[in-house]
Amino acid sequence: MPIPEPAPDRLARQMAFALEADKLKGVIRRTRLPHAQRLENSAEHTWHIVLMAVLLAEHVDTADLDLGRVLKMLLVHDLVEIDAGDTFGYDTAGHADKRDREVRAAERLFGMLPDEQAAEFRALWEEFEAVATREARFALAMDRLQAVMLNAASAGGSWREHRVTYDRVVARNRVIEDASPVLWQFALRLIDDALKQGHLPAAPKA
Amino acid sequence: MPIPEPAPDRLARQMAFALEADKLKGVIRRTRLPHAQRLENSAEHTWHIVLMAVLLAEHVDTADLDLGRVLKMLLVHDLVEIDAGDTFGYDTAGHADKRDREVRAAERLFGMLPDEQAAEFRALWEEFEAVATREARFALAMDRLQAVMLNAASAGGSWREHRVTYDRVVARNRVIEDASPVLWQFALRLIDDALKQGHLPAAPKA
Repeated sequence: MPIPEPAPDRLARQMAFALEADKLKGVIRRTRLPHAQRLENSAEHTWHIVLMAVLLAEHVDTADLDLGRVLKMLLVHDLVEIDAGDTFGYDTAGHADKRDREVRAAERLFGMLPDEQAAEFRALWEEFEAVATREARFALAMDRLQAVMLNAASAGGSWREHRVTYDRVVARNRVIEDASPVLWQFALRLIDDALKQGHLPAAPKA
Repeated sequence: MPIPEPAPDRLARQMAFALEADKLKGVIRRTRLPHAQRLENSAEHTWHIVLMAVLLAEHVDTADLDLGRVLKMLLVHDLVEIDAGDTFGYDTAGHADKRDREVRAAERLFGMLPDEQAAEFRALWEEFEAVATREARFALAMDRLQAVMLNAASAGGSWREHRVTYDRVVARNRVIEDASPVLWQFALRLIDDALKQGHLPAAPKA
């Protein structure tokens, strides 16, 4: 069945957005790559967590899970960083104006798209940010689990580099449990092992 | 509803695979990034084309298209490059033993996974390679369209760098038309513009 010609500038707008998205490859995270002597960028990070979502979906209750929406949510969740930059998870100051910076970015970037697609992408991003649905909780769990995995495989990686203590790592990543107790137990073992091996500073003495 | 505990080593195998997949970030393609002074890696390339598949699915006949399978196919399609390396699209010699190298890679990498997941990922990769389904044709079209877009946005990029002529670029990318005539017309305009601007060598005189 032939499909109708798109409206004249519709495809051009989509392709302009696709080209703009290329900039995410230049947004650098704090995570050190275990297999390369450099920090991770947000585009390759996103690929990794979308792959992990496919790989690990069985560990959440998939009967009610819309995996397709999880994948789309993850695909777009970091795009705002093109304008707003990546905010390190353990950077309290950076988080103060994170929301404002990211909302402006969402408006500009998703605004490049045809209206209903802009609305869809914006809604996916907002859903991820709000962490109020089963899909968003699983998406967030992938985001956190991947960073735990890479830090654990890099002798502490950004934890050690930025002197993030054990208690803060546990507090930040415990949200994994809301998606999947099994995955959280796995993550916690990695964090505990990092502590035992001295790759992660213990909590400061009270 | 609680989900049952996974078999003891099942999650460990999946996580070992997820960590191994990290190596794709170190596989370098020939494509020059328009927004960064470096070549693209296969992990960020994959993110880009999965995003484009979501963005552009309306330009194929989606009534019969399983977009979820397209996304999964794209997510895993380049993983074999971890062992086999990226083969430049216009490198005829490199293509001679590409299949052998990649089959060995598929066996090792997907073999890290629990059996039925190994079979699923292997089947997705084989489906992409065979280009015999509607989903594989769309997946391949995204792979090609993204490279055309980036080369066009980089003043010819790898076309110019490797002296790939106009006729070879058209011949290689015409498969986009099998998925979507509208997307092929767009790609062809980008290629034609690159020729007009002198960013792409014309065919050698006969």
